[in-house]
Amino acid sequence: MVKDRDFMQRALELAIMGRGYTSPNPMVGAVLVKQGRIIGQGFHERYGDKHAEIRAIENAVEPVEGATLYCNLEPCCHTIPGKKTPPCTHRLIQERIRKVVVSTIDPNPHVSGSGLRALKAAGIEIQSGIFAREATLLNEAYFKFIQTGEPFIHLKIAQSLDGRIATRSGDARWITDVSARQMVQEMRQNADAILVGIGTVLVDNPRLTLRTKNGRQPYRIVLDSRLRIPDHATLLQDQFADRTIIITSPDADKARREALAHRGIRVEVLNKNSSEFIDLDELMVFLQRLGVASLLVEGGSAVFTRFIQKRRFDKLSVFIAPILIGEGREAIQDLHIKRLQDALRLELVTFRTIGHQMLVEGYRDIHRTFGKLAEELTCSQDSWKKWEPSLS
Amino acid sequence: MVKDRDFMQRALELAIMGRGYTSPNPMVGAVLVKQGRIIGQGFHERYGDKHAEIRAIENAVEPVEGATLYCNLEPCCHTIPGKKTPPCTHRLIQERIRKVVVSTIDPNPHVSGSGLRALKAAGIEIQSGIFAREATLLNEAYFKFIQTGEPFIHLKIAQSLDGRIATRSGDARWITDVSARQMVQEMRQNADAILVGIGTVLVDNPRLTLRTKNGRQPYRIVLDSRLRIPDHATLLQDQFADRTIIITSPDADKARREALAHRGIRVEVLNKNSSEFIDLDELMVFLQRLGVASLLVEGGSAVFTRFIQKRRFDKLSVFIAPILIGEGREAIQDLHIKRLQDALRLELVTFRTIGHQMLVEGYRDIHRTFGKLAEELTCSQDSWKKWEPSLS
Repeated sequence: MVKDRDFMQRALELAIMGRGYTSPNPMVGAVLVKQGRIIGQGFHERYGDKHAEIRAIENAVEPVEGATLYCNLEPCCHTIPGKKTPPCTHRLIQERIRKVVVSTIDPNPHVSGSGLRALKAAGIEIQSGIFAREATLLNEAYFKFIQTGEPFIHLKIAQSLDGRIATRSGDARWITDVSARQMVQEMRQNADAILVGIGTVLVDNPRLTLRTKNGRQPYRIVLDSRLRIPDHATLLQDQFADRTIIITSPDADKARREALAHRGIRVEVLNKNSSEFIDLDELMVFLQRLGVASLLVEGGSAVFTRFIQKRRFDKLSVFIAPILIGEGREAIQDLHIKRLQDALRLELVTFRTIGHQMLVEGYRDIHRTFGKLAEELTCSQDSWKKWEPSLS
Repeated sequence: MVKDRDFMQRALELAIMGRGYTSPNPMVGAVLVKQGRIIGQGFHERYGDKHAEIRAIENAVEPVEGATLYCNLEPCCHTIPGKKTPPCTHRLIQERIRKVVVSTIDPNPHVSGSGLRALKAAGIEIQSGIFAREATLLNEAYFKFIQTGEPFIHLKIAQSLDGRIATRSGDARWITDVSARQMVQEMRQNADAILVGIGTVLVDNPRLTLRTKNGRQPYRIVLDSRLRIPDHATLLQDQFADRTIIITSPDADKARREALAHRGIRVEVLNKNSSEFIDLDELMVFLQRLGVASLLVEGGSAVFTRFIQKRRFDKLSVFIAPILIGEGREAIQDLHIKRLQDALRLELVTFRTIGHQMLVEGYRDIHRTFGKLAEELTCSQDSWKKWEPSLS
């Protein structure tokens, strides 16, 4: 049993190496084991590339016949238009793999247990549940997106102990220290798009870029219903300006819109709702069209408040610095909550120390985010579960 | 070395058994060891009773001559009017103790190293520094009080993740769960007095009592400059009404003042400052007169804000529940902080999980609170320091 966990841990470590490059696919790692030794390993390196299982087979240093495959996700078994790779189950059967161990099933409606069933029908022994919790959390964005078609929405707040994100005059640099900001880089790596309100652009003029890795940059989306973004904003000026998208409303000045378009800046017009805020339902439709499977919302206060009010978020991460600011810009404004029993209670909450601050993270509703995988999160972490596919 | 730590840990465990009963004296435990075995132990059980060292000698099951004494605080060596016990150093010398090991010196100006010097002069081996940090934190209130004559002021806040202590309508029951409330009981045990503002009394009608132990009840102090406290308030009605003190201003209605006095309720008149709040300097003088060495401030928002604004606190404990309330009653209001660099940064911050919430604790200024013991807190926890008294 201990050995099983070691091999699956290795598979998870491999999976993480794809962070930032696989979306909207999941991060997957695979390890092939024969007589207690790893003979092949691989991970899904980039969207469109080969799956982890195939990589492990191709990298194997010995014949893989009779080997056991450890993989954090159920192997795929489907062919649909647009899918870029043939089903992994075919290859595993063809290569005469003896046993397949996975952390969880793939809730993708085209798979969802059928992969394991196909393997079992071909006489391959199967087992599931090892590090199910870790594997589920690792691909949180994928699991939301594949089951609902909607992006995983992650709100990230950096605040003082008394819940302020800036002084009254807007001074917000820096509430958190460099170790927290390093962690924000990881969060951005997981995101297909980063979103802020125009207020944040006007006060902070942020870059919203990935600074730790070369390569992919997430979209940078600004909610700016009146097109107040100035020409000198970094988001319009730097080398990633083609990744900037301004979301505005029909009320915005047309000349300004054209001027921005003329400079090659993408401007999208969405409707506002009754409270003069870009309609979040329309925004979701736009993000889906854009292929965004995960969105990181970085502020400011009005944006956080609106996403929370409308229950349009999956995960909340709050960095809390041990400082007091007093009256200033509050992280979260009015949520129309009158009684304490109606307060929004986060689920699956974790507390961690990051540098000089604390990081509190929780989910709004794990059943809405993780769907059929939610139960992997509510079992105790040490539980051991053998998934038995029915061949019906 | 490991043995030394074991015996000192036992001394600290014994010390804690006096919690709530020793103020304004410190909590002290003592262990006598001979040939690696504990032969006697004791603790300071109650203010005015025998010191821990004497208890350990009296409880010893073997002759104590040649034994080593482990004690979290330097033995006393002084006789001053009002002191209730003879100097422990005399007794230790008389009993021919071989060695004395302490965690820290006693910064009491009447002791402050003289106890250890006296022992050394009598040929007793001495050592200090074991669990110095733990021993310093254990008696935080004593250390502040004995060095400054002012009470240790501890602010306790229970808030949501977004920094609110109640909804807009004042609903605050309960933001935290039973395990946090249990911890508040411990905080109250350490306090000679608990203080709240009249707003908290009007909205919550709290009891502010110690529910876990029989015996001592801290004073219950209400800041009520206009004497708005209603006759039916629990603080005026229950069996501890004689522990309730109402602090009011000269503006308060005289008839009401007399009516309360007539009912046996203690009312104190203190001046207000320019912003119509009871003057905190006057309050400190009053607390000193009352013999309060440690004050626990439990709210509400206006009271927290005033104590923080005036830098009139030593320690802040914030329970943070993983819930969002949105606009409501903020824990802390205006602190007149304009630039982030002027934000109040807590020192010696710790984060802990307590039940479903987190507890963040920190000190405003460890040098002001702990005086000459502050350095015990800034060394690394595993540091080992031998205190060498000079016999000058």
